Amino acid sequence: ADTINLAVIGGDGIGPEVVAEGLKVLDAVSDAKVERTEYDLGARRWHATGETLPDSVLEELRGHDAILLGAIGDPSVPSGVLERQLLLRIRFELDHHVNLRPAKLFPGVASPLDVARVAPDGIDLVVVREGTEGPYTGNGGALRVGTPNELATEVSVNTRFGAERVVRDAFARAQARERKKLTLLHKHNVLSYAGHLWRRTVEEVGAEFPDVSHDYAHIDAAMIYLATDPGRFDVIVTDNLFGDIVTDLAAAVTGGIGLAASGNINPDRSVPSMFEPVHGSAPDIAGQGKADPTATILSVAMLLQHLGRDEESARVEAAVAADLAERGSAVRSTTQIGDAIAARV
Amino acid sequence: ADTINLAVIGGDGIGPEVVAEGLKVLDAVSDAKVERTEYDLGARRWHATGETLPDSVLEELRGHDAILLGAIGDPSVPSGVLERQLLLRIRFELDHHVNLRPAKLFPGVASPLDVARVAPDGIDLVVVREGTEGPYTGNGGALRVGTPNELATEVSVNTRFGAERVVRDAFARAQARERKKLTLLHKHNVLSYAGHLWRRTVEEVGAEFPDVSHDYAHIDAAMIYLATDPGRFDVIVTDNLFGDIVTDLAAAVTGGIGLAASGNINPDRSVPSMFEPVHGSAPDIAGQGKADPTATILSVAMLLQHLGRDEESARVEAAVAADLAERGSAVRSTTQIGDAIAARV
Ligand SMILES: CC(C)[C@H](C(=O)O)[C@@H](O)C(=O)O
Ligand SMILES: CC(C)[C@H](C(=O)O)[C@@H](O)C(=O)O
Repeated sequence: ADTINLAVIGGDGIGPEVVAEGLKVLDAVSDAKVERTEYDLGARRWHATGETLPDSVLEELRGHDAILLGAIGDPSVPSGVLERQLLLRIRFELDHHVNLRPAKLFPGVASPLDVARVAPDGIDLVVVREGTEGPYTGNGGALRVGTPNELATEVSVNTRFGAERVVRDAFARAQARERKKLTLLHKHNVLSYAGHLWRRTVEEVGAEFPDVSHDYAHIDAAMIYLATDPGRFDVIVTDNLFGDIVTDLAAAVTGGIGLAASGNINPDRSVPSMFEPVHGSAPDIAGQGKADPTATILSVAMLLQHLGRDEESARVEAAVAADLAERGSAVRSTTQIGDAIAARV
Repeated sequence: ADTINLAVIGGDGIGPEVVAEGLKVLDAVSDAKVERTEYDLGARRWHATGETLPDSVLEELRGHDAILLGAIGDPSVPSGVLERQLLLRIRFELDHHVNLRPAKLFPGVASPLDVARVAPDGIDLVVVREGTEGPYTGNGGALRVGTPNELATEVSVNTRFGAERVVRDAFARAQARERKKLTLLHKHNVLSYAGHLWRRTVEEVGAEFPDVSHDYAHIDAAMIYLATDPGRFDVIVTDNLFGDIVTDLAAAVTGGIGLAASGNINPDRSVPSMFEPVHGSAPDIAGQGKADPTATILSVAMLLQHLGRDEESARVEAAVAADLAERGSAVRSTTQIGDAIAARV
């Protein structure tokens, strides 16, 4: 019974290095037998075979309990190919509509903000980013490319169905937290059609959660809040593109994407969810043992929690917190950080 | 000859208060005779008459040398009405395609960033935001509104014509600056059609400016840079929506939207350009003399520069800089700040 059937996609650049440390910590913490299948996907395979994500691999992925992904992307591959045909394809095909991105400032971690002044009570927020709609659907086109009359469009697609399920998920998460507060980020004064859909959805679903307060901020104003008063946020819910933007800023103010974990979640447990650090493949430092595996290790904590292994998840997070608290400015290698955290769990 | 024919739109909330201080400084600094026509536009007029921007008023605006705008928007008016039918209508009808937003950290101004660590050489950047395309065209729609099957779209419209003219403008601005560096912000790995149009445009127009270096950042990565290394930016060029988002963050890290000025510019001098603070109407503090008029006063400096009155523009900026350097934490009223800056020009 106690087996975690894990699909592992190391991917490009630093991806395999950080995933190795994530697995190390997973092995150290979990009572479960971790059965892993490694998938060779990313730039190398695309160059060698022209394949990004063969249908047969996608079918195999479906058979796992969860997916752990390192990072996808390499400058040698044309922009968008791996992103759309591999990473986004998994998110869309497995209907990972809840793209969950916590941002917490751990003690001992340096923020670029003057925290004593702008976040005296700390930063601890979660972004619930919609993962399968918005301008990410690839629904655009171009005419007269390369001429002075070129025209290109990108269509943001939003459905009540799609918004409602993530809004409900976000309210439930807010309800389980201490502050019980949800903020919708959008730009309804300009993107009126989509904005009003999101707004009404929050109003209506909010009625099911009378103990959760909710408010709204325009995406531009949210930038200011994150820089000057990040403590105002508890749970944020927003669309795919705004979520992409806001989670990088949330990561930056809580110590950087070296620490930012994420889950691409399908709450239907019969489909595997995928856990990955928010950072990219960082080809400039690949293979040098310089990458910080902490984001991947925290993604493993999210994975354990998603699989109902809350106690093991909490131990990983506590081990990371303890490591961060003592980290100081000493430079350690990817492996050293992984070893230190694995030793603590 | 030396007359500035100025259209003034105080607008809503704190708009009229900050505009009054802007005009005070304009009168104090300029040798020109400032002939002003005040237009009553905004929430009050909409409630009284249902009008947002009558065609006849738009025609009258065209006859001026420039427009000074305070702020538009009030919670009593449905979202989008004043934004789209008044503010955006002026920007679109007068083809204000260069939405210019400088962000400079003046000495003495507190940034929410730990500046000594993340921006030791200061912050001095300019965002050239495209002002007439992108997802701001109102090109979207909705189906089955209010039902579980509701669908809403928003279309980002991008043309080579539209991108090329702002990219060329941005390169020219970069060339006139010390660092001569331009950064395109987009998300071409996901928004491929529009992203590739922008990227190719920057490559091609860049060839006309061999002394200006240029690079690229994804909009999400730009969030991280602005928080952790804002000094890396000199001139940023980007689309309408990304520009909206990034300029609020740029404003936040350089002291807040109380200081952020903007110009909605049509480089064709036969059409009036419009200058406005980046902040909104802040109805919560309207009428209390609490609003900081500095952003409007810096917008007046941009207005003077646009009209070729460089020396007067520089005097306004110097007066603001001197005021900011001595501002400290003393609380002054809107009028006191305006008086102090007017006395210095
Ligand atoms: C690589 C890219 C397609 C991806 C996204 O935009 O979702 C990344 O930025 C992320 O946030 O996971
Ligand atoms: C009020 C709104 C329509 C406007 C915009 O989005 O352009 C504002 O946010 C701005 O940045 O000037």
